[in-house]
Amino acid sequence: MTTSHQPTTDGRRGLSRRHLLLGGAAAGIGAVGAVGIDAAIRAGEEQPAEGAKTSGSEWGLEPFYGVHQAGIATPPPALTTFLAFDLLPTTDRGAIERMLRILTDDAAKLTQARSALADSEPELAEVAAHLTVTFGFGPELVRRVNANRLPAWLSPLPAFSKDALNNATSHGDLLLQVGSDDPLSLSHCIRMLSKDARTFATLRWSQSGFRNAKGSQPQGTTMRNLFGQVDGTVNPAPGSEDFAGVVWSGGEPEWMAGGTSLVLRRIAMNLDTWDMVDRVGRESAVGRTLSNGAPLTGSEEQDETDFQATNTLGFPVIATESHIRRARSENTSERIFRRGYNYDDGPTTGADGNAGLLFASYQADPVAQFVPLQQRLDDLDMLNEWISHVGSAVFAIPAGCAEGGFVGEQLFQ
Amino acid sequence: MTTSHQPTTDGRRGLSRRHLLLGGAAAGIGAVGAVGIDAAIRAGEEQPAEGAKTSGSEWGLEPFYGVHQAGIATPPPALTTFLAFDLLPTTDRGAIERMLRILTDDAAKLTQARSALADSEPELAEVAAHLTVTFGFGPELVRRVNANRLPAWLSPLPAFSKDALNNATSHGDLLLQVGSDDPLSLSHCIRMLSKDARTFATLRWSQSGFRNAKGSQPQGTTMRNLFGQVDGTVNPAPGSEDFAGVVWSGGEPEWMAGGTSLVLRRIAMNLDTWDMVDRVGRESAVGRTLSNGAPLTGSEEQDETDFQATNTLGFPVIATESHIRRARSENTSERIFRRGYNYDDGPTTGADGNAGLLFASYQADPVAQFVPLQQRLDDLDMLNEWISHVGSAVFAIPAGCAEGGFVGEQLFQ
Repeated sequence: MTTSHQPTTDGRRGLSRRHLLLGGAAAGIGAVGAVGIDAAIRAGEEQPAEGAKTSGSEWGLEPFYGVHQAGIATPPPALTTFLAFDLLPTTDRGAIERMLRILTDDAAKLTQARSALADSEPELAEVAAHLTVTFGFGPELVRRVNANRLPAWLSPLPAFSKDALNNATSHGDLLLQVGSDDPLSLSHCIRMLSKDARTFATLRWSQSGFRNAKGSQPQGTTMRNLFGQVDGTVNPAPGSEDFAGVVWSGGEPEWMAGGTSLVLRRIAMNLDTWDMVDRVGRESAVGRTLSNGAPLTGSEEQDETDFQATNTLGFPVIATESHIRRARSENTSERIFRRGYNYDDGPTTGADGNAGLLFASYQADPVAQFVPLQQRLDDLDMLNEWISHVGSAVFAIPAGCAEGGFVGEQLFQ
Repeated sequence: MTTSHQPTTDGRRGLSRRHLLLGGAAAGIGAVGAVGIDAAIRAGEEQPAEGAKTSGSEWGLEPFYGVHQAGIATPPPALTTFLAFDLLPTTDRGAIERMLRILTDDAAKLTQARSALADSEPELAEVAAHLTVTFGFGPELVRRVNANRLPAWLSPLPAFSKDALNNATSHGDLLLQVGSDDPLSLSHCIRMLSKDARTFATLRWSQSGFRNAKGSQPQGTTMRNLFGQVDGTVNPAPGSEDFAGVVWSGGEPEWMAGGTSLVLRRIAMNLDTWDMVDRVGRESAVGRTLSNGAPLTGSEEQDETDFQATNTLGFPVIATESHIRRARSENTSERIFRRGYNYDDGPTTGADGNAGLLFASYQADPVAQFVPLQQRLDDLDMLNEWISHVGSAVFAIPAGCAEGGFVGEQLFQ
């Protein structure tokens, strides 16, 4: 296993440093919060944004402050919009800090159903519905703050042979990932944060996705994508040690300790040609049933796949070019945490198609974990017949912050 | 009062005829349903799509078949998309009937959480979440079926002086209004119906709107628009005689009995200039408080407005040019039923603005009821400083149908 995604000695050192940094602010976040953070750091264990403890009600709030940013280990809400901004040429290190302080302050308020600092429509903040805001940094933002601290992996992904990337839905200097179960709270939060950012940056792109509405399905149901597939069965469980190992950075570079990376891939799905394939063909392409997502060698979604099984003709039940076989690696370090969203920009005709998946992949190191996986799928995956990667972006997701701090402060220290 | 929106003798004749038409099919819809329809027709009373009776669970189904189409008296779901299609030149009367039969059949299935006839992703139909589909006809569709039956009011509205209409979000031959509390069910239903329509028509426009998510607010809470205003306080109550009088056509022309009309106005709202006005100024522009929507002469949202009240300086408390004074008519027949949705196409810069209100107005006769209201607002309304009507469409919404029939069948008989 690589050091990049396990709580190794290096990782603990990173976390310890972070512990010291948080120490000064701990008084401000209340005894329980401070103890929680301390305990989490001591044990080197997962603490999912303190969410599980305090968001009791169905339409409750997700804590903003914590060891990690919310919006990653948090249960995915119905709606998420990813916004990328380009910094203005004049936005220097000092301006970036001011921008992040303002955005942090307003995100902290809005996620707790309180109005933003300059909120002209404070009543629109009253329903937050698990609103989360997650900040990400592109390479240019990190360079302007401290070029020496650029993570080795923070750059556009290597080109894959089947990529058909559109620059208008790729890259960016600052990411805001805003999620909510409520469309009005989402809209209001995006507007407030976009107003905050205006002085410092221009919007590069905005991509909106959805899952089933809050409450319409039993909690924990794996989402379905627009091909009708159960999508995301094999995924580390937030809160588990496994999750922590895959997702949270141990501190390479040091300021990233407790953070992660986001790879956002916009995957256009050709629903029309997919619909032309019969059910057997479609299930074979993936290696799972459409009805409940069970591997073709099993009967339930969570059944272990038997990649050795053969049918009466001696052929493998899970085809060699099927998606789940190609996605699986013998190398257990080549794993990611996914939190995808469907997108559907309506039944118009567009060059890139108009529906698909916003594939959001979180991992300590995208080059070590995401790239080999995507390389295998790019080389061979029956699904490539119907999908096309049309947008790509990589962001460093810094750790969380305590009250009084701001997201990304570790980069400035 | 005009005959167009009251259950007059003419109206009863219309309903009686419809009763006869439904009679033949009543056996197919089950005894309870048939009795319900009979009772409603006998009493000349409102029967809100049978919804109240059968959609018991929070994530229940809205009945499709009934005296009226669903999606009008139905409680507004979180999400609604309006789609307008232009008929192909070759789509004649016979083809229109085939198209409506196919669309009716699939809408009936999908709204009941059953897969469409040629549904390649049947699993995506499993959550319906109050899915409704409402059909509307533009003048061209009616003309191709039977030009003699064109309602006198079915044409583009007269031009208003402040209109800034964009043809790309105006008019159309066929309307599909699709509403759901669940974004995935909405997406799937729109895709299935759009596929059905492809052989007969091309998409002209699609406009999507939202309210608060299902369950995030107490039922019956009046929506807020993106100006932060409580929007839609004065509205007939579905199920009341008042509602029936305002909304359902008495049968002018006869095939419209039990139907209504939709005026859809796309109202761009300039959130930036609105935010520059102080709270007092904004409340004065509307005549209601922002906090709870109470008239400035009262304390609760539903308090009757006192238009005579003056302040200590002798000026009216509700300004003469305020929105609620201008919207109110002495003529009680100039009333509508509204079921609006916010739209927000993201923080980009667009000529028409990118956020506002999809103002959906239902009334028996738009020329008699909607036009005078809009004329007063066009003449004078403080809100005109910040809003602009950028899209407009009028559709005839036929009555509902029984199982075995199709929406709009009355036009063909």
